[in-house]
Amino acid sequence: MKLTTDQHILIVGLGLLGGSYAQSLSAQGFSVRCITRRQSSVDYAVRKGWIESGSTEPTADLIAWADVAVFALYPHVFLEWVARYGNYFRQGAVLTDVTGVKSSVVYRVQELLPSGVEFIGAHPMAGKEVYGVENADAGIFRNANYIVTPTDRNTPEAIELCRDLGVRLGFAHVSELTPEKHDRMIAYVSQLTHCIAVSLMTCNMDPHLQDYTGDSFRDLTRIARINEEMWTELFRLNREALVSQIDAFAGELHRIRTYLSDGNDEKLKEMMRISTARRALFDKKPD
Amino acid sequence: MKLTTDQHILIVGLGLLGGSYAQSLSAQGFSVRCITRRQSSVDYAVRKGWIESGSTEPTADLIAWADVAVFALYPHVFLEWVARYGNYFRQGAVLTDVTGVKSSVVYRVQELLPSGVEFIGAHPMAGKEVYGVENADAGIFRNANYIVTPTDRNTPEAIELCRDLGVRLGFAHVSELTPEKHDRMIAYVSQLTHCIAVSLMTCNMDPHLQDYTGDSFRDLTRIARINEEMWTELFRLNREALVSQIDAFAGELHRIRTYLSDGNDEKLKEMMRISTARRALFDKKPD
Repeated sequence: MKLTTDQHILIVGLGLLGGSYAQSLSAQGFSVRCITRRQSSVDYAVRKGWIESGSTEPTADLIAWADVAVFALYPHVFLEWVARYGNYFRQGAVLTDVTGVKSSVVYRVQELLPSGVEFIGAHPMAGKEVYGVENADAGIFRNANYIVTPTDRNTPEAIELCRDLGVRLGFAHVSELTPEKHDRMIAYVSQLTHCIAVSLMTCNMDPHLQDYTGDSFRDLTRIARINEEMWTELFRLNREALVSQIDAFAGELHRIRTYLSDGNDEKLKEMMRISTARRALFDKKPD
Repeated sequence: MKLTTDQHILIVGLGLLGGSYAQSLSAQGFSVRCITRRQSSVDYAVRKGWIESGSTEPTADLIAWADVAVFALYPHVFLEWVARYGNYFRQGAVLTDVTGVKSSVVYRVQELLPSGVEFIGAHPMAGKEVYGVENADAGIFRNANYIVTPTDRNTPEAIELCRDLGVRLGFAHVSELTPEKHDRMIAYVSQLTHCIAVSLMTCNMDPHLQDYTGDSFRDLTRIARINEEMWTELFRLNREALVSQIDAFAGELHRIRTYLSDGNDEKLKEMMRISTARRALFDKKPD
């Protein structure tokens, strides 16, 4: 089951990501509406032509209008929303999301929904260090990865539809992982990197730092400008996997420290060769 | 004493950085020559018009021709070179370098040179993940920092000349640090970041990693493609400062781990706010 442009798409939470979905899908001819907190976000997106209309209230009519709904909310807000309004969806509606953690969200949402309304999790791995629909830009999906996280409650039709959404949005690579594998992976490639960037900014308080830095330091700390509410919640919901990745990383860093203080140049070079070979894998694709 | 275009400039070691110096300075009307290992590098730079001529042999005539010499060699090669050929420089010549560590190099070079030949250390904080004169590009100096590292054996004239070289090459910011302060700073902003990138690549061996990564992971690991000979040498020559920075960073990462497992959201958010505020300092300048 692929998406067809006669399907109604409802975006719940019109921020950077929700807005970018709306921009891309409306340009492809879909009817897009939204439910979001701020009236100014609705007004902005209507002016841009990204949505037909929107509401700051989750009305039964608007919810029942949707064939496909995309949730772009903080995890706890998402769960509360589904508990409260999930029953308004029509039979056969397919729901998906953009949440950055999966195990702690996907199963609970699936349990909360009435039978005949299907939720299939997805994680578009794209973003910016800025927020809000005013910064939405469907271009952020190019060269980015999109991960679908089905459970055994999902139908092949909904999985296909969710994958098709990723393709239509322009993601370079669409893949599938279980919620658990997704969370372990994300603990490594996204959450650990944010912990590193924060630690790197706070471990030295030299006030003149910016006069002495090179590109590498700026690259490593770009994500140190961090939305503390969102990331604290994402970390908390994936605590076990993240702690385990921090430990694995800290172990490798400690290995470098040991080789360094032991003067073991050969082992140090060996680590660097492995690192170089692994990093080279990434440059096979545009980056 | 500023540079004047009637001065002869000798580049010793015509790789990525030496070549970029030659490109920029020849375009400004200086006479530039070089001594380098490979004849093909000489030929390439002559063809490009970046040098008048060059040699693979450090001949007495060519060394005595230089008013200003720039060394772009591995640290141990640099020290051996100065010990062997330093006496050929004419009285009044000013020597500088691009070496990424300072305390272990600057004082020894100053001791090795005959009186009347002055060495003033400098560190142009620019580079690429590729090597060789064929990849030289004076554009890498734009928006980059240039650090002069004088000792009490340096004259105000040579310090001014060395700063002027940084300005002429187009660096965005020219500053001065003692060799010791430079090494502590570099241990933090450059060497630690390379250790982090390597550890991040080696701490997880998932073969499908590139299908699940976002921009942040790619940014943090761009420098994980690393020249193991050069960086092992730079790490070894700055061991004490680097170990101390690794420890400071590992301490902060451990703090995150503790807040996370204790469920101390408030402390976690506080660290993220400090990180965000500190990182914002960098965005005041083009980046």
